[in-house]
Order: sequence, then C-alpha cells, then structure tokens
Amino acid sequence: MRIIDFSRGVPDPRSFPSDSLRSMTATALARDAARMLQYGSPAGYPPLREYIASWFNCAIANVLIGHGSLEIFKFICDAYLEPGDVVFVERPTYDRAITTLRQHGVEIVGIDIDEHGICVDVFEHELHRHVPKLVYLIPDFHNPTGACMSLDVRRAMVRLAREHQFLIVEDGPYCCLRYTGIPIPSIRSMAPELTLHLSSFTKLISPGVRTGFLVAPDEVVKRVTSVAERNYIAPCFFAQGVVAAWCADGQLPLQLDRLRQLYRPRLDACVQAIDDSLPGRLFTHPEGGFFVALRLGNLIEEKSLQVAARGVGLILSSGSAFFDIDPGYQFLRVPFCALPPGDIIEGIRRLGNVVDHLNEVGLRGKTLPLTDTKEASC
Amino acid sequence: MRIIDFSRGVPDPRSFPSDSLRSMTATALARDAARMLQYGSPAGYPPLREYIASWFNCAIANVLIGHGSLEIFKFICDAYLEPGDVVFVERPTYDRAITTLRQHGVEIVGIDIDEHGICVDVFEHELHRHVPKLVYLIPDFHNPTGACMSLDVRRAMVRLAREHQFLIVEDGPYCCLRYTGIPIPSIRSMAPELTLHLSSFTKLISPGVRTGFLVAPDEVVKRVTSVAERNYIAPCFFAQGVVAAWCADGQLPLQLDRLRQLYRPRLDACVQAIDDSLPGRLFTHPEGGFFVALRLGNLIEEKSLQVAARGVGLILSSGSAFFDIDPGYQFLRVPFCALPPGDIIEGIRRLGNVVDHLNEVGLRGKTLPLTDTKEASC
Repeated sequence: MRIIDFSRGVPDPRSFPSDSLRSMTATALARDAARMLQYGSPAGYPPLREYIASWFNCAIANVLIGHGSLEIFKFICDAYLEPGDVVFVERPTYDRAITTLRQHGVEIVGIDIDEHGICVDVFEHELHRHVPKLVYLIPDFHNPTGACMSLDVRRAMVRLAREHQFLIVEDGPYCCLRYTGIPIPSIRSMAPELTLHLSSFTKLISPGVRTGFLVAPDEVVKRVTSVAERNYIAPCFFAQGVVAAWCADGQLPLQLDRLRQLYRPRLDACVQAIDDSLPGRLFTHPEGGFFVALRLGNLIEEKSLQVAARGVGLILSSGSAFFDIDPGYQFLRVPFCALPPGDIIEGIRRLGNVVDHLNEVGLRGKTLPLTDTKEASC
Repeated sequence: MRIIDFSRGVPDPRSFPSDSLRSMTATALARDAARMLQYGSPAGYPPLREYIASWFNCAIANVLIGHGSLEIFKFICDAYLEPGDVVFVERPTYDRAITTLRQHGVEIVGIDIDEHGICVDVFEHELHRHVPKLVYLIPDFHNPTGACMSLDVRRAMVRLAREHQFLIVEDGPYCCLRYTGIPIPSIRSMAPELTLHLSSFTKLISPGVRTGFLVAPDEVVKRVTSVAERNYIAPCFFAQGVVAAWCADGQLPLQLDRLRQLYRPRLDACVQAIDDSLPGRLFTHPEGGFFVALRLGNLIEEKSLQVAARGVGLILSSGSAFFDIDPGYQFLRVPFCALPPGDIIEGIRRLGNVVDHLNEVGLRGKTLPLTDTKEASC
C-alpha cells in the first residue's frame, strides 16, 4: 500500500526552480561575490532588501531578511514581549506560532475564526478584558484552515488596532498563492504604521533557501535587527544573493504562474474528494494557499484517528496542536500542495472510510446521536 | 589619508573561493536539488554532517550544522542554562559570547589567561567557590589574544571537568589556521564525552555561507537540535549543500593552504611592526588565527584612544568589551587577516604614535610614573 502523507505543509519538490537557481548563482557570484560571501548587515543582503522594498512599496529601512519567517517572528517576540503579556491569535492558528509564544511565557488568547476570518464580536469582547501587545494573524489562506479574512474584518482589525494601540503581526507566506477569486488588500497596505508583515520565499522558491522577511515600520525593523545581530551577526548572504539575482532576473512572476498551475488542480481535486467522501466536513473552500481543513466532529479522538489512519497508509498531523485550548472536536488540516491529484483523491477516500468507521464505533460506544456539538464558529 | 580598519575579525574577501563555489553549486544542484531545496533535519544537511563526522572521527549523530557557531552557542545556552547558573570564561574572551551569556542571566566568572591559556591555579580556586555548568574556552588562537592553550592546561581542564562534572564548550573556528609551530590536540579529542566543540566554515570558506557546526555527545546534539527546530524548522540546506559538494570535491585542504600562505606574512608583518612601534606591548606572539593583542597600560582611556585613532585614520574596536569586568588597563585586539602587510605596518605605526602621545598626556595629567600596574596574568 502506498503511504500518503497529509502531515506537513511543504511544497512539491518538482516546483523547485533548480535550473534558474544554478544559473543565478553564477550571475550573483560574478556580480557581487565579495559582498555575498562576507559578513554584512544583520538586516539582510542590500539588493534583496531593495527588491522587497520595491515590491512592498516601502523603504529599504522597512525590510529585514532572515532565515525564514518563523525565526523572525521569534525575534519579534524577543524584542517586544515580556512574560505575562497578552497576545491574541486566531483559533486555530499556526502551531509553531503557538509554541514560540508559549516559550515567551505570554498569555495566549485564541479567538475563533470562520470562513471570513477572525470573529470581530469575540475579538471586541476580549478587548474589554485585556489589551494585547501583539495580535498574530494569517489573513490570506490561513494555516491551518485555508480561510481568507474578508475586507470588512481586515478593516475592523485596523480600526481596533488604532483604537487600542496594539501591533498586528500579519503572517503572509501564502498571499501570492491565490488560485481563484479576487485578491484582498493586505492589512499592511491599509495600516503600514502598525503592521509587521512577515513573508517568505519558502513557498515561492523553496524552503532550502531559508529566506524569509519582515516588512514593518523602521523602528520595528531596527529593534528586530538588533536581536538578529545578537543571534547570528549576519544572515546567509550567499542564499540571499542568489535569491536577489533570481528575483532581479524576473523569475518570480514566472514561478508564481507555474505554482498556480501546479497547485490549483490539487486544491480542486481535494475539495471535490472531500465533497464525495466527507460531505459537510470542509471548514471552508479555500481560494489558494496550501491547506484545507476538516471538522470531524466530537465522536473521534485524535489518537484513534491517527492510529486508524496509519493502518490504511495515511499520515496525519495533530489537529489539536493548532489550538491554544482543547477545541472540543476533532480538527484536521489537510495540506494538498505536495501531492499529485491522484494521491489526494485516494488519500481523502481512505480518510473518509476511517472517519466513517470511527464515527460508527464512537456512536456505538457512547450511544450518542451522530450530531456534532460545539465547533469553532462565530 | 587611507582609513585602516583594525576593528573586525573578518576574512580577506580575496580569499573567498567564489569560482569553486559557483561550480560546486551546479554540481550540488545536479546531484541533490530536491533535498537541498526542501525542508530537512534541523540538525543539518546529511551529506555535510557525514563529512564533518568523518573529519572529526565521530558519528553523524554527534554533528549539528547551523547558521554560524554563535547561534549554535546561543542554542546551547537555551538548552542548558538557567538564570543564576555559573559559567566560567577566559578573561578576556570573545565579546559576543559574553553578550550571549549575559542575555541568559547567568553569573559569568572570568579567569585570566596568559600565553599558555587559562590560569589553572585561579580556575581551581574559583572551583572552590562555584561549580560551573559550562566552561567556555577558545583554546586555539584565542579571540581576542591569539594565545594557544598549552597541552598541560588542556589536560588540566579535562581533569577538572571530569572531577567537577561540568561541560566544556570548545570554540575552535581558528584550529585549522596554524601558520607555524606544532598543532596541539583539541580538548574534544581528549574528552569527547564532555566537550561541545564549535567550529565554522566562516574563516575557512566565507562568512556569507553562514555554516557553523557543533560536534558533541549525541544527547547534547539532540537537545540542541530541538532548540534549532523551534527557531527555524531547518537550516539553510542550499548553502550547506554547496559547502558539502565543495568539501567532497577536496577543496578544503587546498583552501587551507591558500589561507595559510595569505595570512602568515600578515601575522609576521604585524608582530614585527609591533616590535618596532609598540615594543613590549604584545600580549603573546600567536602562531596562527586572526588576532594579535596589545596591553597598552593604564594611562590610556578607551574613549581617548578611539578618538585619537580616528584622527589618524585608524578604526579600533572596544578592548573592554572582551572582559567580563573592567580589566584595569587598556587592552586592544588587532585583527590582521583582512589587511595587506603594507596596511598593517602603516596602521601599527600610526597606532604607536597615538599610544606614545596618549601616554605622554596621561603621564603629564596624572603625574604618575610610566609603569603599568595590574595587567591580566597568572
């Protein structure tokens, strides 16, 4: 039986532009070896900072480049958070963001999201109880649900941030990976003075180049740069130099077209397979990104699900890891980008059988009606 | 007037092997693009871990590769230290190690070193007062003094570590850069079970590849790997893949020969110029590495020295930053690798004039005899 891995949100290696990276390494070294191979600014390789500044319509002083956006998020936490501070996050949210926040000893307040993004009513209610120092959001093709925050919700976030003086960390690694529908302006574009926009070339070029970045007010970039310098003096200018040459060569739009052509049929296959095998379980129908998510009800336990899935050659990630508290139901993230449509369809079919079986067992064991109780919504 | 920069311990960009890095990028991508460009083990790119394991005669489980040895040292501190723990360091020592330890809120106990390394008597005396959790040492071509720890002192360190159950962090980025004399076995080679050996390709290939590594007991590598994963998921496999191909191609010994040929005349010129212009001020006559150091006495203040040096086109680093406490005299580190011999000779000549002048002013101002009081020794 072929193993199908639904556990990690990694790109398809077939999407990696290794030929252009090879030729752009030669170009970059011919042009600027002495700078690419030396120590340099802890904020990153200047020509790549310039490219990103021009992309995001800001100054070079608003850009820091590091070894992936997760580490930059950690540096932001190092620079801004003290134990006991309050941070609002979406519920569910990126599991590694939760881990990083827990390490900083802050109080994490999760706020439910639905297909339009974070629930503004609940957010306002929580604001009466605490003022967060940071709010961590993934507005575009949210990890783990695939949801896209509506323009109205983004506007509400900006209004509340201005009223209550908190900073928004907008994690946007999937922004460019829209396969259908109309792009929604980023929170940063609406309120650059209070937004720390994180992004990365991980999903656009490859994880191995380890090149993520921050676009933020210059005083934020300064503070985060100090943390970066204390950590590693300067980041990997060799990789950043290659990425800079690759971008300057006009490769990014071509690569984005290729990625959209590769990933859109996978999203379509995934959603169709879920409609067929797990009807009514889809969290939302995403228009881009790397993930769809499922609500599998409260009759299934995580451990039983993972064990039963392994028995049919399926590897699943922990659903509860994406929650700051026990969600009270079984959640599952399904990354679809690294698998060809045939594998996705087969994987969802197997998952459907496992879920049906566990629901039957759960029903018999608990003699409860097959209706799901409280699930995340707002 | 030509500016001469004696402030930073950086390699000469003319030493960077950019041609072989370019061709080895092509080789590496042709051979293993899918792995080099994907996420992978947080402990580093497996073929480079294998190369280092074979170099250090250990298992792959004893090797972790990250973005420079400073960040790995930080991860070691994250994994092992709690606020209030005691860490012994050489006095003086690498300034960024002091900064990292201070961030961890530990008690730093500096122990004087002389030309044979750390003073064992003082070390034993301090052991009666505290048991350190870690001891941080730079035995080969010590930063900032250039001193090499003698075999006897290394043996004493191993004996004391076994008796008192502390771990030794042996920072060895300059080990391969011996220009004269006979190599001394590393502490790790004498006691691999208690040594965390840090090293790096920064001084051997280039800082821009941002590839440093740890060779340590496997349970240490495991703990540090967990910290690395929480920070950045996986390190820059693109750079590590290129370094691995470059090493597998047999480039390292060739490059080491080139570096020794380039740097040895610079060391010789530097020591000769100091004998001519600043007689009696040399901390020790190094046999390799990146640095010589000067004891400039207690009549000169750091700020006056830096200002006067700037006035004659010399950029100097802070000498006091290398000490955990005020050393009571003016110390100066002189990095010689990035400058051609002519610049070194001219720079030391200017420095000699500045020091003579400031000593005269100091003498007149303080009406003290021109003899240096307490200086670091043991």
